[in-house]
Amino acid sequence: MSLRIQPISGFPEFLPEQQIAINRAVDVIRATYESFGFVPIETPAVERTEVLLAKGIAEKEVYGLRRVQEDGAEDSAKELALRFDLTVPLARYVAQHYGKLRFPFRRYQIQPVWRGERAQAGRYRQFVQCDIDVIGDETLSLEYDAEIPAVIFQLFRRLGIGKFTIRINNRKILTGLFQSVGLADDVAVRAALNVVDDLEKIGAGKVLHKLGELGLAAEQAERILHFFDTKGSNDEILAQLKAMEVNAAFAEGVAELEAVVRSAPDHVLPRLDDGELVDVTDERALFPDYFKIDLSIARGLDYYTGTVYETRLDDFPQVGSICSGGRYDDLVGTFVDKTFPGVGISIGLTRLMSRLFDAGIVTPEAAAIAPVLVTVQDRNALPAYKELAARLRRTGIATEVFLDDRKLKAQLRYADRRGFPIVIIASPEELDAGQVVVKNMRYNQEDRVAIAQIGPVVRSLIPVGFE
Amino acid sequence: MSLRIQPISGFPEFLPEQQIAINRAVDVIRATYESFGFVPIETPAVERTEVLLAKGIAEKEVYGLRRVQEDGAEDSAKELALRFDLTVPLARYVAQHYGKLRFPFRRYQIQPVWRGERAQAGRYRQFVQCDIDVIGDETLSLEYDAEIPAVIFQLFRRLGIGKFTIRINNRKILTGLFQSVGLADDVAVRAALNVVDDLEKIGAGKVLHKLGELGLAAEQAERILHFFDTKGSNDEILAQLKAMEVNAAFAEGVAELEAVVRSAPDHVLPRLDDGELVDVTDERALFPDYFKIDLSIARGLDYYTGTVYETRLDDFPQVGSICSGGRYDDLVGTFVDKTFPGVGISIGLTRLMSRLFDAGIVTPEAAAIAPVLVTVQDRNALPAYKELAARLRRTGIATEVFLDDRKLKAQLRYADRRGFPIVIIASPEELDAGQVVVKNMRYNQEDRVAIAQIGPVVRSLIPVGFE
Repeated sequence: MSLRIQPISGFPEFLPEQQIAINRAVDVIRATYESFGFVPIETPAVERTEVLLAKGIAEKEVYGLRRVQEDGAEDSAKELALRFDLTVPLARYVAQHYGKLRFPFRRYQIQPVWRGERAQAGRYRQFVQCDIDVIGDETLSLEYDAEIPAVIFQLFRRLGIGKFTIRINNRKILTGLFQSVGLADDVAVRAALNVVDDLEKIGAGKVLHKLGELGLAAEQAERILHFFDTKGSNDEILAQLKAMEVNAAFAEGVAELEAVVRSAPDHVLPRLDDGELVDVTDERALFPDYFKIDLSIARGLDYYTGTVYETRLDDFPQVGSICSGGRYDDLVGTFVDKTFPGVGISIGLTRLMSRLFDAGIVTPEAAAIAPVLVTVQDRNALPAYKELAARLRRTGIATEVFLDDRKLKAQLRYADRRGFPIVIIASPEELDAGQVVVKNMRYNQEDRVAIAQIGPVVRSLIPVGFE
Repeated sequence: MSLRIQPISGFPEFLPEQQIAINRAVDVIRATYESFGFVPIETPAVERTEVLLAKGIAEKEVYGLRRVQEDGAEDSAKELALRFDLTVPLARYVAQHYGKLRFPFRRYQIQPVWRGERAQAGRYRQFVQCDIDVIGDETLSLEYDAEIPAVIFQLFRRLGIGKFTIRINNRKILTGLFQSVGLADDVAVRAALNVVDDLEKIGAGKVLHKLGELGLAAEQAERILHFFDTKGSNDEILAQLKAMEVNAAFAEGVAELEAVVRSAPDHVLPRLDDGELVDVTDERALFPDYFKIDLSIARGLDYYTGTVYETRLDDFPQVGSICSGGRYDDLVGTFVDKTFPGVGISIGLTRLMSRLFDAGIVTPEAAAIAPVLVTVQDRNALPAYKELAARLRRTGIATEVFLDDRKLKAQLRYADRRGFPIVIIASPEELDAGQVVVKNMRYNQEDRVAIAQIGPVVRSLIPVGFE
């Protein structure tokens, strides 16, 4: 009897060729994070339910655990629930291991999170997040806020997924602005931030209406909306902001934003002409085109208190923000009587890769991870075919041997369907003579090569995308 | 108010320096798997509960999901449960995506699994497994069984965790033997296999007693026990086995074991003297010392039907098997009306690394992933310090800048505690003159270096273990 296999809605799963592309992206993300000194941590999939709910997430989105077999006894699994982000676990981790960590603590974490959302197109119940955060012990220099855009810039440049824009703002500017029109308490300001965050999506008319609902007079709402007309280059926007006299919070936000915007490019390498790095691209000259102040960025639902970031693909705005984050005054405070300010970003990897696949920006071609398949023409000579593969592996070239007993034609069909770029074919006589045929599958070209020189020849044929 | 932070029993969590060591091990495992052509897949953390339980795992060990917020409505989350191994998800994956996969399907999967076991020393409720399997469509050559030991050999040789032994056996030999003494049905044979599997742990006396409990006469039990005295080199054991006349199943097992043992070394590279690889170690000459027939290996509780493997560290037998697996006639059959034979192994990574840490075989030293820390002596020159770090990154050297406003002494203490091997120190005057001091922390040695040549100098100082 066979069970019917039905995919589980909201829990995405990929074919090998897609997983290979995803893993390559993770390698780039991880290497970039590490290049800035971020260290890896992983936390268990579960946290205590009370720890998770302390941060005010919607209870209905949290998956709890239970024993499948209910035996009447108290089920201690019910005290545990799956994490819904990587930030709460980080806060708990810092509080728990405080004495063994050094601050500023830079950590990266690439793990799945779970959210019991109503499943709908593009919404996942399980997805991988790639987070970095720098956590200070009591204080943390604004300089760390300025380093993050350089990390984002280098990461997506390396991923090669097209032109993108890192948009930056400071929540204090918006908070100051809203306070200046009489939205005094945090709840009202937060509600207004949410409205503003939707400006691009819902348009000016609806924003005015919604601000009215929050108790703002029409004139005040117009004043808010007018503020978001502040446009131009980063320098132009900063000049306009500095000319506005609003209140202390506003001025503080402007000063922070200016410091971060001025300081960020220093982390990106300019073209140098001093011998060592003559030929490098001038990344710093490119950077300004990728890094823009956008006063409408609010990250309304999050706990950010200062700098906020969003990143979008210029040619695929429908993909939405592919990397968001910001500065928070105190993350861990729920758990210990100490202040831990931090700044960080998160990349929603599963959503990003799905959208890149859907939009055709990333097209997984090969379901092969090894570039070479050694076919077996005569099973009596199997040891020689296997040794050939072992030799290629030893020169650092991943190599699969076709070990099932099939005709050469079937083996070549397998190679073609899996997308192997290079196939080795040899008769026992050729092997005896120390020769094989190296077939370049993409150009349908065959070359006879001496086994003793096979390493360099095969390496020269490996296309981009294979190691 | 602060919450009390209490670790969750059975859900291990590591410090950054340990996680770095774990990730380096994963890199080696992944690279080795890929070098043999295994492709990555990942499956969701959950499967349908009915799918998981179809494979006969103890229900009480399975963690189910539920909504934390119970609102009276039917909770569809209760249809889902966390996977307890990577084999059931593989079976479901192959059945679900059959038309889009090519066979033989070689996959690797490195993901956590969850088991609701009673927490005790060394037992984890969440742990990472690193699995490979080759799945055939209806048939799968025994040659794949012979490739696995070469994968294990190269993997643990590269991990560098000391001398180990891959032990191999064939379940048909044991099944045949037990049938020959009258244990006719599967349940009895399985029970006997479990008893034999414990031979090393509980000793001959207890095994005899337990075999008696299974209904074997004393003479038959003695005969079984005597069989396990078959010792010697692989050749000697095979010669003795071939001389025994037991039954057809036994003979088939012996023939398979011989084929696999004879064929396995071909996958390992010998010393070659033909120009390209003159200087390589003769791995094939080493292999026999790492690869032994052990007739007592039964993997009693598993679903293996032919070849079985276990791997242990010679000098740390208490660590137990660090890599186990085998051949199964049909894995996926529960889900579709087709036969998918397979062979695979699993490494219990979390347990392995914990034991290696505990036994001092792996001692994580540095909590730094980047080898270089750039200190900041004068914040007015921050742009120059940051550019220096960007330059090192551009030459491929991961580099952290200390961006908080602290005295140099505090920055050096931070570098020391995090285990940075290389620290860059410079005054603004030195920076203006194009020079910095490169401090080798492990030898407490300082060198003045021109910035224009810093890449090669720093690279030459990076110790093993850093990229």
